[in-house]
Amino acid sequence: MKMEDLQHQQMGYDRAATMFAPDGHILQVEYAEKTIRLGSASVGIVYENGVLIISDRRQKDVLVDSNSANKINEIDEHIICVSAGINSDARVLIERARLLSQQHRITYDSAPNTESIVREVADIKQQFTQYGGARPFGVSMMFAGINGEPVLYTTDITGNYLKYNANAIGENDEQIKKLLREKYRNGMNRIEAIKLALDIFREIQKENFSIDRFDAGILEKGTLLKISGAELERV
Amino acid sequence: MKMEDLQHQQMGYDRAATMFAPDGHILQVEYAEKTIRLGSASVGIVYENGVLIISDRRQKDVLVDSNSANKINEIDEHIICVSAGINSDARVLIERARLLSQQHRITYDSAPNTESIVREVADIKQQFTQYGGARPFGVSMMFAGINGEPVLYTTDITGNYLKYNANAIGENDEQIKKLLREKYRNGMNRIEAIKLALDIFREIQKENFSIDRFDAGILEKGTLLKISGAELERV
Amino acid sequence: MKMEDLQHQQMGYDRAATMFAPDGHILQVEYAEKTIRLGSASVGIVYENGVLIISDRRQKDVLVDSNSANKINEIDEHIICVSAGINSDARVLIERARLLSQQHRITYDSAPNTESIVREVADIKQQFTQYGGARPFGVSMMFAGINGEPVLYTTDITGNYLKYNANAIGENDEQIKKLLREKYRNGMNRIEAIKLALDIFREIQKENFSIDRFDAGILEKGTLLKISGAELERV
Amino acid sequence: MKMEDLQHQQMGYDRAATMFAPDGHILQVEYAEKTIRLGSASVGIVYENGVLIISDRRQKDVLVDSNSANKINEIDEHIICVSAGINSDARVLIERARLLSQQHRITYDSAPNTESIVREVADIKQQFTQYGGARPFGVSMMFAGINGEPVLYTTDITGNYLKYNANAIGENDEQIKKLLREKYRNGMNRIEAIKLALDIFREIQKENFSIDRFDAGILEKGTLLKISGAELERV
Amino acid sequence: MKMEDLQHQQMGYDRAATMFAPDGHILQVEYAEKTIRLGSASVGIVYENGVLIISDRRQKDVLVDSNSANKINEIDEHIICVSAGINSDARVLIERARLLSQQHRITYDSAPNTESIVREVADIKQQFTQYGGARPFGVSMMFAGINGEPVLYTTDITGNYLKYNANAIGENDEQIKKLLREKYRNGMNRIEAIKLALDIFREIQKENFSIDRFDAGILEKGTLLKISGAELERV
Amino acid sequence: MKMEDLQHQQMGYDRAATMFAPDGHILQVEYAEKTIRLGSASVGIVYENGVLIISDRRQKDVLVDSNSANKINEIDEHIICVSAGINSDARVLIERARLLSQQHRITYDSAPNTESIVREVADIKQQFTQYGGARPFGVSMMFAGINGEPVLYTTDITGNYLKYNANAIGENDEQIKKLLREKYRNGMNRIEAIKLALDIFREIQKENFSIDRFDAGILEKGTLLKISGAELERV
Amino acid sequence: MKMEDLQHQQMGYDRAATMFAPDGHILQVEYAEKTIRLGSASVGIVYENGVLIISDRRQKDVLVDSNSANKINEIDEHIICVSAGINSDARVLIERARLLSQQHRITYDSAPNTESIVREVADIKQQFTQYGGARPFGVSMMFAGINGEPVLYTTDITGNYLKYNANAIGENDEQIKKLLREKYRNGMNRIEAIKLALDIFREIQKENFSIDRFDAGILEKGTLLKISGAELERV
Repeated sequence: MKMEDLQHQQMGYDRAATMFAPDGHILQVEYAEKTIRLGSASVGIVYENGVLIISDRRQKDVLVDSNSANKINEIDEHIICVSAGINSDARVLIERARLLSQQHRITYDSAPNTESIVREVADIKQQFTQYGGARPFGVSMMFAGINGEPVLYTTDITGNYLKYNANAIGENDEQIKKLLREKYRNGMNRIEAIKLALDIFREIQKENFSIDRFDAGILEKGTLLKISGAELERV
Repeated sequence: MKMEDLQHQQMGYDRAATMFAPDGHILQVEYAEKTIRLGSASVGIVYENGVLIISDRRQKDVLVDSNSANKINEIDEHIICVSAGINSDARVLIERARLLSQQHRITYDSAPNTESIVREVADIKQQFTQYGGARPFGVSMMFAGINGEPVLYTTDITGNYLKYNANAIGENDEQIKKLLREKYRNGMNRIEAIKLALDIFREIQKENFSIDRFDAGILEKGTLLKISGAELERV
Repeated sequence: MKMEDLQHQQMGYDRAATMFAPDGHILQVEYAEKTIRLGSASVGIVYENGVLIISDRRQKDVLVDSNSANKINEIDEHIICVSAGINSDARVLIERARLLSQQHRITYDSAPNTESIVREVADIKQQFTQYGGARPFGVSMMFAGINGEPVLYTTDITGNYLKYNANAIGENDEQIKKLLREKYRNGMNRIEAIKLALDIFREIQKENFSIDRFDAGILEKGTLLKISGAELERV
Repeated sequence: MKMEDLQHQQMGYDRAATMFAPDGHILQVEYAEKTIRLGSASVGIVYENGVLIISDRRQKDVLVDSNSANKINEIDEHIICVSAGINSDARVLIERARLLSQQHRITYDSAPNTESIVREVADIKQQFTQYGGARPFGVSMMFAGINGEPVLYTTDITGNYLKYNANAIGENDEQIKKLLREKYRNGMNRIEAIKLALDIFREIQKENFSIDRFDAGILEKGTLLKISGAELERV
Repeated sequence: MKMEDLQHQQMGYDRAATMFAPDGHILQVEYAEKTIRLGSASVGIVYENGVLIISDRRQKDVLVDSNSANKINEIDEHIICVSAGINSDARVLIERARLLSQQHRITYDSAPNTESIVREVADIKQQFTQYGGARPFGVSMMFAGINGEPVLYTTDITGNYLKYNANAIGENDEQIKKLLREKYRNGMNRIEAIKLALDIFREIQKENFSIDRFDAGILEKGTLLKISGAELERV
Repeated sequence: MKMEDLQHQQMGYDRAATMFAPDGHILQVEYAEKTIRLGSASVGIVYENGVLIISDRRQKDVLVDSNSANKINEIDEHIICVSAGINSDARVLIERARLLSQQHRITYDSAPNTESIVREVADIKQQFTQYGGARPFGVSMMFAGINGEPVLYTTDITGNYLKYNANAIGENDEQIKKLLREKYRNGMNRIEAIKLALDIFREIQKENFSIDRFDAGILEKGTLLKISGAELERV
Repeated sequence: MKMEDLQHQQMGYDRAATMFAPDGHILQVEYAEKTIRLGSASVGIVYENGVLIISDRRQKDVLVDSNSANKINEIDEHIICVSAGINSDARVLIERARLLSQQHRITYDSAPNTESIVREVADIKQQFTQYGGARPFGVSMMFAGINGEPVLYTTDITGNYLKYNANAIGENDEQIKKLLREKYRNGMNRIEAIKLALDIFREIQKENFSIDRFDAGILEKGTLLKISGAELERV
């Protein structure tokens, strides 16, 4: 810990999401980001004619129903989402995203644009970093969607979001992104994209790597494919 | 207690459910989890054609009406629930679950899905860990239900929930779960499931074990059976 | 005082009903329970064909109107209630219980179930231990009622309630309960029940015991009898 | 000051009416009671066919209008009220009592029962000791009324109230009550009751006693008599 | 400063108007009273057939419009008011009093009673000493009115008010009141009353006394006379 | 800094606008007044048949649009306003004043009285010094208007306002007012008034004085003239 | 850090946006301004027949979609906006500006005035520096628009805004403004304006300068041109 951080703690600048520290940081938001690094990792990749998310569920607990442990959530038939951080916070935002998506279909009789769903979720997150009386949502979220072209978005704790070609959230995200920057290239096909994600996990997890730990959501025009474990190597 | 925990206490990161500690934890939620470990244990098991919960009421007080001490609550004719932690907190959530179930029956003229009841209760719990002005619900809950197939869910303090094959809440939950992982297998019948639960309690409680301490709720298609004490060995 | 309690006080975990201490306790609720032990005691007993509450009004103040000092309150013609703790808090909850009872009679044209009145009072109590901006109700309450069969309920500060065969609230409640456990038996008649209660008070109060200190409320099918002092020995 | 009190102060248990101290007391309420002892005393006595309040206005200030210094307030033609503590707090509650009384007359076309007026005032007081965001009313009140029979009530800071044969509020209330307990007897006539009150004031105030300091409100069936000073000795 | 006061400050009993100190005082109210003593003084006197207020505007600032510095405010044609303390607080209450007065005239087509206007202003003041979230009004107010007979009222910070024959507010109020007690007598005529007020100011201000500093409001049946400076000696 | 001020800071009396210090001051209001002295100065003068405000915009920034730097705001065609302190606070109040003015014109079809606009702005300011949950408006404002006769008002932080013949706000206001008291006389004409203001600025700013720094708003019956810089010497 | 700043921190004057420090500053606002200096810089320039903003996106991340990294936002077809500070805060205000612009078009069937959009955004910002319960928006914004003539506005954290000929926000803003003051002249054409902005960035960023880092928004009558990178040198 840096000397400056310690001083800021002793002065109490880190006790409320509504307070700036003297250097302009909002420390409660920075603390909440630590929570995200405690969650297992997910990787998203846009490829030639689709977009996929591969997510690590960590070790398998025989007591837990295996579908229940799958972290890849369907928002609409053309949008999926994965999160890192506090699971119940994520569920609340995912339920909201589903509701927004259904409302759009009812109102306009068409599939909602992925970015407008992402923006609404991100706006909720922003409010919880600015208004008092509640804590920020302790969750980072990655959305994959198909609206004509495949798209991938990530929102952080503050409610900022960007569009990505490929990205990672959760533990070791910086290492994974470093490897993605080296190895990602436009125009990969689906098999290459899956292989890239699994190779990166294999490189980082080393002896802990096991194909059983992984679930994937794969979106291509008009289809959503959800597969897990050994199936991933058979696509 | 770890040095880091002590520092976090001295800095006051643990005074509100709306505050993150520098390492990303919400300490009020972690404290509330201690309350759950103070409550007596319950075990839930999904078996071949049903699901059961066996719950420890601890020692018998001659002054207390014996039905009143039974911790297994009926939410609907096909859903039961047991809790560990603050009893009055649990009652409030159970009353809510019953109301949601009745509303569903009135609105749709059909039995509600167990998971949707669980999710609504879990959403309430999540809110109490994020918004200020109230404390989190100090209670963990286990729901068993039959919707076509038998299901078992557990919600924690944060409002996270998962679907289980078998699980335990309350004191010694980690030990019980360890034994469940070893001994549970899919496709047990009802008698085997009851025996498994009682054997685990016998192994953990040792000389304090007494069949009089236990109540069971047993759900099979179209029937809910509530039995207690010696009856459990006669099923 | 235990070392741990002292540390919790110094850390401020006991300043709000909405805060958990590191060991999972809500200290404001535990402090409020001390208030209850400061109140004079009452004993409730279910007997063969009725239920009674005998309540200690302590010493007689010639300046106070004797009816006004009687702590046994009529909620409805078939429900009575006694409390220990802060008298004005109790009165507010008793007024609420009366109102609920009247509303039930008006809505359904029948006598309300005792337990549903108890549950509504208990739900109010629970809320005041969870939401900020107010303190918990500093009162324990014992309700006796006749709905077909005689029933006895006790609610604590947290809003938890149980159904009892016999119970005590107020000062020396643990000692009284110990004696009740030894001496209570099912199927006593009215005279035996009164004698049991007075014998226990005599044993505990020793030279301070005086029959003038006691009021009783006795519920049997269709009748409520309120008697005091020497009359108690003439029933 | 007791050592324990000092510790409670240093720990801050006495900073909010919504906080219990470790021994179960609400210290803000106890502090507010000190305010009451700072107010001048009033004595109330129920006699054979009436009830009276005699109130000390302390020394006479030539600048103050003499009616304005009279502390005996008329709530309705058959209810009077006197207070000790913060005068403006008392006025607010007295105005409320008057309004409730008028509303009763308009709604039911009959004189309100004294106790129901007292209870409504007491309920307001109770709320201010339980909810945050305001301080308790710093006032004790004595109500005398005639509803068929003469009645006398006193409410304390917490909103508790009792019915009395005779009572005192304000400075030296304990001493006055001790003398009342010795000298009060049922069935006194009006002259004896006035004499009793003045004799007690004379005994306590000694050389400071002066008949000019006192105002009286005397209620008998159908009449309210307000007299002051030397008139009191001519009734 | 007394030792006890210092301790109360260090313990923080003086930080909120909603908090009682251990001796029963509300310290924020007592501090606000200091503000009143910082304001310049006004004297009110009821005389034979009228009532007047004479007010000190202190030294004359050539830049300030002389009407604007006159502290005597007209509430209605038969009620005037002067204040000491925070000027903007006073203005808000004076505007309220004017509005209440106009509303009365519109509703009842008659001049409002002076006391009912005073009571409504005093009730507002009381609320600001009891509820949190705002500070008390830092102002003492003196109202003179003619309702049949001439009347004079003074309200303090707490919202208490009394009716006076003569009174003073603002700096040196205690000294002025001492002189008023010595020299005031009932049945003075207008000239004697003005002379009394000016003589008292002369005695207290000594070499700083100047007739130019004073404004007067003089109410007699059906007339309000506002005069200033040397005119005062020519009435 | 005075010893007493330092003690008040250490005791925390200066942390909220809703708190009085032991000497009766509201320190947050006094701190906000410092902000006003940080703003550049403006002078207002009532003359024979008009009123003018001359305002210092300090040094000219070539990047800033010159109209945008002009601090003299038009509220209505017959009312102008200038402020010192926090510019955005001032803008909010100026927008409010404009709205009030327009509403008056729409409702009554006539020009609003300058004082009623000033009073409404001042009432808003007062509220922000009394209620919690917001800080006071950190701005002093000077209003010039023509309603039949020319008028000049100044409101301070607390919401107090007075009518002036001439006045100054902003840096060095006390020095400017001292010079105004020496040199101002009733009945000056427009040229004399402009000269007086510029002479005073010249005397205070010495070598920093430059005619380019100044803007003026000049109100005479039916006309508003806004001029800047060298034009000021050619009027 | 200055000694005085340190003292203000230790005294806690910097913990809430609603608190003034003893020298009249609002420290939370000053801390938030640090956040702005952490953002990458943008330069705005009004030229002969248009206005442009050139914005630095810093280094290019291959994982991020290049449109998504472009910081120049379209509010309406004739208004663009760029920000420095917290990105999600900026997005919320930009969404609001777009909504206001659309509402204007729907209500009045014409393009909104740039300044009225800027003022509404600035008013929102001001409120968040005055009211409690939320933190200020940590963002500075620059708006360029064409309403007849080209205009450029900048709003700071407090909600103050000015109209500029040229300006900069974000890191090194003071250095950039210094260079703009030296080199900017009225009546430049588009090519000169782009060159001026890029030359200044080149001078400040030195070896880190790369044309790939920059995006531009160029508004001329009826057209909005958005270009990036090398294109900028080909305009």
